[in-house]
Amino acid sequence: MPRYALKIEYHGAPFAGWQRQRDQPSVQNAIETALARLEPGPHIVSAAGRTDAGVHALGQVAHCDLTKNWAPYRLAEALNFHLKPAPVAIVAVARVADDWHARFTATERQYLFRILMRRAPATVDRGQVWQVSRPLDVAAMQAGADLLVGRHDFTTFRSTVCQAASPVKTLDSLQVEQVEGSTGPEIHFHVRARSFLHNQVRSFVGTLERVGTGSWSPEDVRTALEARSRDACGPVCPPQGLYLARVGYPEDPFAQA
Amino acid sequence: MPRYALKIEYHGAPFAGWQRQRDQPSVQNAIETALARLEPGPHIVSAAGRTDAGVHALGQVAHCDLTKNWAPYRLAEALNFHLKPAPVAIVAVARVADDWHARFTATERQYLFRILMRRAPATVDRGQVWQVSRPLDVAAMQAGADLLVGRHDFTTFRSTVCQAASPVKTLDSLQVEQVEGSTGPEIHFHVRARSFLHNQVRSFVGTLERVGTGSWSPEDVRTALEARSRDACGPVCPPQGLYLARVGYPEDPFAQA
Repeated sequence: MPRYALKIEYHGAPFAGWQRQRDQPSVQNAIETALARLEPGPHIVSAAGRTDAGVHALGQVAHCDLTKNWAPYRLAEALNFHLKPAPVAIVAVARVADDWHARFTATERQYLFRILMRRAPATVDRGQVWQVSRPLDVAAMQAGADLLVGRHDFTTFRSTVCQAASPVKTLDSLQVEQVEGSTGPEIHFHVRARSFLHNQVRSFVGTLERVGTGSWSPEDVRTALEARSRDACGPVCPPQGLYLARVGYPEDPFAQA
Repeated sequence: MPRYALKIEYHGAPFAGWQRQRDQPSVQNAIETALARLEPGPHIVSAAGRTDAGVHALGQVAHCDLTKNWAPYRLAEALNFHLKPAPVAIVAVARVADDWHARFTATERQYLFRILMRRAPATVDRGQVWQVSRPLDVAAMQAGADLLVGRHDFTTFRSTVCQAASPVKTLDSLQVEQVEGSTGPEIHFHVRARSFLHNQVRSFVGTLERVGTGSWSPEDVRTALEARSRDACGPVCPPQGLYLARVGYPEDPFAQA
């Protein structure tokens, strides 16, 4: 059966997350249901990253096996037709080798987190940013972020329900920048690693926001990290500012797509 | 009675437009209802530009008269509290002179129109862009746009229900640029004039899109303009890519806000 890689974009608001769950809408189920309209199922799509409820994706990647030889372009069109009106879109499709795996072949995940800094409630950006009413100190947040980069035991920044075998991960990059959004000043966190623990990015951002307001010093981040205790973490921030931006592979399967 | 200028941001989707209408939700009504929670009404807010159903605003400006002396910051906070959960936000408030008028004192309006160029349906940007599946030629669209700049009889680009006294207006600027959006390549139209006719921006964009696909030549825009006939216009494009971006005044009332 030919295997296909799917690059997927979605708005997280209507979903209980990526993963299929009984009685709850999920992105995985939406795509598997669309696949069943093309070929008899059951179908299983495996994703590179399981996003939580309310989290968006600009470049989620998953794979599926089908019986027919689909032209990638035709498969994307057919899936997008059957996905309507759910806010999920297949933005690229590629034929991949039978042993290619969206999750296990992946060598890198990149996340974006957006904070909108203003008092007035978000309107056009509602559900797509975390709003913080006080200005945040970018330099202090970057100083705190720098202490997280590298190979560490990230138990502090890991959900208690995380299923990863080990809390030791290597964080490749955590860049904090202020940008002028169309509705006000935003803070963007760009986070990059081979893999992440459950809630790791939102635990980072919630903790660094404490640094940005001055409640914590950058050094407090080191203390929290070294505590290797969930209790030492800052508040986990809400999901709607989080985007799975990109999944990296040794060779980009969508290079010609 | 002290007069206040309000800078207003809104998502156009849930509204039949700015203007109050019987039995239909409007931005004007949402704000007037919020004002009535602060001081007994009736209240009337007058806006610089009447946006159509589905059109967004990043910087609409309106004014209202109240009996109390409100600290601008407190008035914004109170209105935003009562506007919830409508996607309307008062992003700035300023005390202005009694003869200051949001519409008649305004000397300039700026609009932004966003086209997303891709096949796959928009998800995170849904309702905020007009999607066009074929690539558009920016240089050709700019060449067509250049022919519209200046003082002209814009009958061709004016809704038949437009109430303006004259179809003669001066278009100060119409810039077309391609930008890399987070979900794909976008075309942004930046349009600036003292005032606009009804549907003028959407008539421009719908016509220039025809030029972008190659169906029309840039010179066809001149022919359409000179026809001074609604029949000569390209298709009026949909509203959801349109944003009232900014209203200009001889002195910015929000300079200190």
